[in-house]
Formats: sequence, C-alpha cells, structure tokens
Amino acid sequence: MIGRLNHVGVATPSIEKSVTLYRDVLGATKIHDAFDMPEQGVRVCFVDVPNSQIELIEPLGDDSPVHGFLAKNPAGGQHHVCFEVEDIYAARDEMAAKGAKVIGTGEPRIGAHGTPVIFVHPKDMGGVLVELMERPEDLHE
Amino acid sequence: MIGRLNHVGVATPSIEKSVTLYRDVLGATKIHDAFDMPEQGVRVCFVDVPNSQIELIEPLGDDSPVHGFLAKNPAGGQHHVCFEVEDIYAARDEMAAKGAKVIGTGEPRIGAHGTPVIFVHPKDMGGVLVELMERPEDLHE
Repeated sequence: MIGRLNHVGVATPSIEKSVTLYRDVLGATKIHDAFDMPEQGVRVCFVDVPNSQIELIEPLGDDSPVHGFLAKNPAGGQHHVCFEVEDIYAARDEMAAKGAKVIGTGEPRIGAHGTPVIFVHPKDMGGVLVELMERPEDLHE
Repeated sequence: MIGRLNHVGVATPSIEKSVTLYRDVLGATKIHDAFDMPEQGVRVCFVDVPNSQIELIEPLGDDSPVHGFLAKNPAGGQHHVCFEVEDIYAARDEMAAKGAKVIGTGEPRIGAHGTPVIFVHPKDMGGVLVELMERPEDLHE
C-alpha cells in the first residue's frame, strides 16, 4: 500500500532557526516559504531534497498538538513520517481493518500539500507517528 | 550539500515484528534480508519505498548504542535521518567548520550501504540525529 516517502516531519521551536540550519549548515538549496495551518495548529515549512522533503513544524496557537512534543523534546526532533497512498479512504479503511488506530475522527483532513491525510497512532506503528497522504495528482510519476 | 534522503532510521526492539508491520499492515512489498553490523552494535533491515528506504535498527549486543534509545522509547521510534553527500570527508570538514559536532572520532565508518558515513550530533541538528552517507556509485543518477 505505502508509496513514496513524501516527507519527514521535524518539529522545531523555531522554523526561522531551523531554516538557517538546513540552509547554512546542511546546505539545502530549495526551501519553500513557511505558511500557517491554523486548523491543525501548526506553521510549516518544506525543505526540498532531490527525492523527498523535510517538513519543519512549529506550534501555532496555544492548542497546538506540537506543544506536547516540544515539552518532551525542547530542541525539536523527528515528529512523523509521511507516506503517499493512492486513495486515502481505502487506506483509512485498511488501517481500521488491520487494527491500526487512526487518530481523531477517522475523517481525512486536508494536509499541507492540499490532499487528504490521516495520521496513524504510534502505538500501532512501532512507536512512529505515520501520516498517510493521498498522492498529489501533479506528482504522479 | 545534502542530497537525497537515503533513509529514515527507525529503532525497534524486534526487526521481525517491525517487518510484519511494514509488510502486512503498511503493505510494503520490497523488504531486504536483515543483517548484523557487529562493529556498530546493530542489526538492520531495509524496507524499500519507491523513492527511499526505512532502515529498521535492532540492538545487537550489550553495548549497542540503540539500547539507550529503546530505554526511552520502548516501542521503538524514529532514530535518525540519513542524507547522501558526494564526499564524506568534505562533508565532515564542513560540519566541523560550521560548528556542528561529528559523533565519535570524526573518522568516517563504513555504513550499512557499504559507503563511509558520519553521524552529526542532534544538539547541533535541531534535535535530529543526522547521518551523512557518501552516495553509493551505483545509485548515482
């Protein structure tokens, strides 16, 4: 089922400082503009590498789900991995059928790339928070 | 400097159980044979996705550096990200010049793909353990 590794989500207390790290220390050359996703309580910024992306995630607002992560990991750290799937509803139903808990209502939400996504609970994913994201049409290979 | 996201390292108490997860729940179709890397205290297994890999890492031996990670994260979790670089010595010198601490002696070691690698300390990488790996010749694009 899982397709491309669309991105690795990296939580950070400051996208601005993380951009400096990825650009000036690690030498990433393509860094997109950051933008707010208020409905998910995050501000995000994508850093391109040739085959994938790093998604920098900063908490937005007092209710951000990222606050808990940063309380445990004040410097930031790896937050989730995101795999592309062909059909988000089929993926959701397959997770449920296999006993893997989809976080929230189970209804896909629109993710940072504009396609529907779900998150699967780390307790059923070997301790890894897994995002499944319907593959954007314009990225079909 | 950084090139392709070669893999995401995922620590696990049991490669066998993780393989079941990636194969039977997430539907990965290409999973390589696991193998021991005694000099690094790990047993590893690569799971392919179309553009990258997940490296499952199980502790090997009493001195394995992964024991500490699993003590904090008993179910396993995201352990490191690995980016390809063209020249590992140039990358090492660049990290040093920019004040990012290379773990260990600073001398590259042979990694799981047979090319030299270094690890850069999470304290200088936004809380993320970063592996830099010299790009395998046969993967040059």
